[in-house]
Amino acid sequence: MSHVEPIRWTNEGVVLLDQRRLPGEVVYHTYTNYRELARAIKEMEIRGAPAIGVAAAMGVALGAQHSGARTLEELRGEFATICETLATTRPTAVNLFWAIARMKQRFADLAADAQKSEGVQALERIRTRLVAEAQQVHEERRAADEAIGRFGAEFMPTSGRVMTHCNAGALATGGIGTALGVIRMAVEQGHKLEVFVPETRPYLQGSRLTAWELQQEGIPLTLITDNMVGHFMKTGHMGAVVVGADRIAANGDTANKIGTYPMAILAHENGVPFYVAAPVSTLDFAIPSGEHIPIEERSPEEITHMSGVRVAPDVHAAHPAFDVTPARLIAAIITERGVARPPFVESLRKFATESESKPLSAPVKS
Amino acid sequence: MSHVEPIRWTNEGVVLLDQRRLPGEVVYHTYTNYRELARAIKEMEIRGAPAIGVAAAMGVALGAQHSGARTLEELRGEFATICETLATTRPTAVNLFWAIARMKQRFADLAADAQKSEGVQALERIRTRLVAEAQQVHEERRAADEAIGRFGAEFMPTSGRVMTHCNAGALATGGIGTALGVIRMAVEQGHKLEVFVPETRPYLQGSRLTAWELQQEGIPLTLITDNMVGHFMKTGHMGAVVVGADRIAANGDTANKIGTYPMAILAHENGVPFYVAAPVSTLDFAIPSGEHIPIEERSPEEITHMSGVRVAPDVHAAHPAFDVTPARLIAAIITERGVARPPFVESLRKFATESESKPLSAPVKS
Repeated sequence: MSHVEPIRWTNEGVVLLDQRRLPGEVVYHTYTNYRELARAIKEMEIRGAPAIGVAAAMGVALGAQHSGARTLEELRGEFATICETLATTRPTAVNLFWAIARMKQRFADLAADAQKSEGVQALERIRTRLVAEAQQVHEERRAADEAIGRFGAEFMPTSGRVMTHCNAGALATGGIGTALGVIRMAVEQGHKLEVFVPETRPYLQGSRLTAWELQQEGIPLTLITDNMVGHFMKTGHMGAVVVGADRIAANGDTANKIGTYPMAILAHENGVPFYVAAPVSTLDFAIPSGEHIPIEERSPEEITHMSGVRVAPDVHAAHPAFDVTPARLIAAIITERGVARPPFVESLRKFATESESKPLSAPVKS
Repeated sequence: MSHVEPIRWTNEGVVLLDQRRLPGEVVYHTYTNYRELARAIKEMEIRGAPAIGVAAAMGVALGAQHSGARTLEELRGEFATICETLATTRPTAVNLFWAIARMKQRFADLAADAQKSEGVQALERIRTRLVAEAQQVHEERRAADEAIGRFGAEFMPTSGRVMTHCNAGALATGGIGTALGVIRMAVEQGHKLEVFVPETRPYLQGSRLTAWELQQEGIPLTLITDNMVGHFMKTGHMGAVVVGADRIAANGDTANKIGTYPMAILAHENGVPFYVAAPVSTLDFAIPSGEHIPIEERSPEEITHMSGVRVAPDVHAAHPAFDVTPARLIAAIITERGVARPPFVESLRKFATESESKPLSAPVKS
């Protein structure tokens, strides 16, 4: 299925789409040096937790591939440095640490095998298999998104308008996206959709990223400001809402980009079904309800300035980056393992044991 | 009561605060030439329908004051030109036309009287009285705002947080403002309020104007983006919401700046009382309900660009400038003639006859 690709493993190296320059410029960089790739992650050339996880796995593989180590012990030392370098790029993206841990485990297994065999070929085999592992991380990411997309597509209207929020798209995951994956899959299956895209202040992920993604693929869209959500929910004949998630509590309460909760209330008020699309790894069974989800408070400067220009006087500003949508407003939670319907405290439980036995990549978004 | 003054009649001329340069710079211009004042209105140095009405009345007075006419007929000719010039500044501000019509009527009355008297003194008296009439327009505006403020203050909590939207303040009216007038009056009466101010995309009247006004007067405030309204309505212990209005239907349905309807829904959902503060002239008894209020559609460029910088790809965007809040979400409508409570279809009626007999200046905002 065609979609924009924020990251790609190629014979020439790891290719990143520089998301900081979107939508003004579409620039790809090819990295052969893992330290440069680490800097690109740190400087947010790529963002979105799942996409960062893929980038980190590829960074580890890239480092190993280009390592000049001649012995297993040399490679082991370099490998540790590589992982450490990549681990210090972003502090909060769970997937980053998950991906590095997975690559470390793979290396440990391969190294244990290599003890038994000999010399340069053994090292080469480790390198090749680490590259394959990174590609596998990406492939699993893609497969999870496609599964979410397939499960979700049936909830989309056969024609008409749908709304999303922020960017839970290809740019954030490296696959087809979660919420946007659902929309892409529905369009691929022949649904005639027009997507309403709130710009998503203060970072404008809606206008800069989601609008751009949809435009690239010729999916009709209408960009709006965040305060227009109510007007179009009431008068715009919206058929459905589908958003991503940053964390989902055991009862289905969902933390997502600030602005999601009002969208859910307005959808509910106007009889528009509201869906959450997210990988199983987003489920946090340790958290009984949304009240216990900590909300990240970011710098007020991001509110008072736009594109580096001060737009407000020097006043107090608040910047909660997420809000919590109560489970009662959610019609279904769509994961790569299937769909949960209310009451979520029961329907989500079936994913609990599975997710414990097989960790997948984590929350949408950085 | 102290407040920022967007317009002032002085012996040196009409003093305007250049609102285009707020909040970065606080610049006042003094106009002695009505053509230059007309250009200032056209170029939005002053905005907000009531404030524009005051500016237009002062422009007419200024033109007459500085006219070199030596006979009544000369003055009549010049007066017509002055009114015409001011009438072509802004196309939709009702108050502009209302103010010019009022000055024309005053001139006609004075001219009729002058027929009976003689020469230069008679002309001088006309000029003086036109200046007095313009000041009277401003004074009535101030008095109406203060009355709204007094009626509204009692609905504000004695301490705690309140929310507003856009700018229904001194900058928009030339008085203490409508919604902000209520807040100002409550603070003056000793209420300890902190005002939550959504930035109000796309024009940022919240961050550029309301935040600035409150800051000038030392009223505590917190600036937020529009998509944070839900989060703070749910978790922020909001005591009340008070907003202005652009048009109010006979049943109380209220058109106001885009983003007002979601704020009302979110207030209702979280048990926060939602008040509308507006002059009686905002009531439109010809319109039975909100469905019949036409919504102005503005340029999509205002969404895709910020401070002249393109922030979105070249995509379709929508820009409804207002939305309609159903009457059932409104706890009270506060006017300069008193407070209407639900059911509004009855309670508003008492203002109908009064407003017909005595037209006042019209809607808040440009």
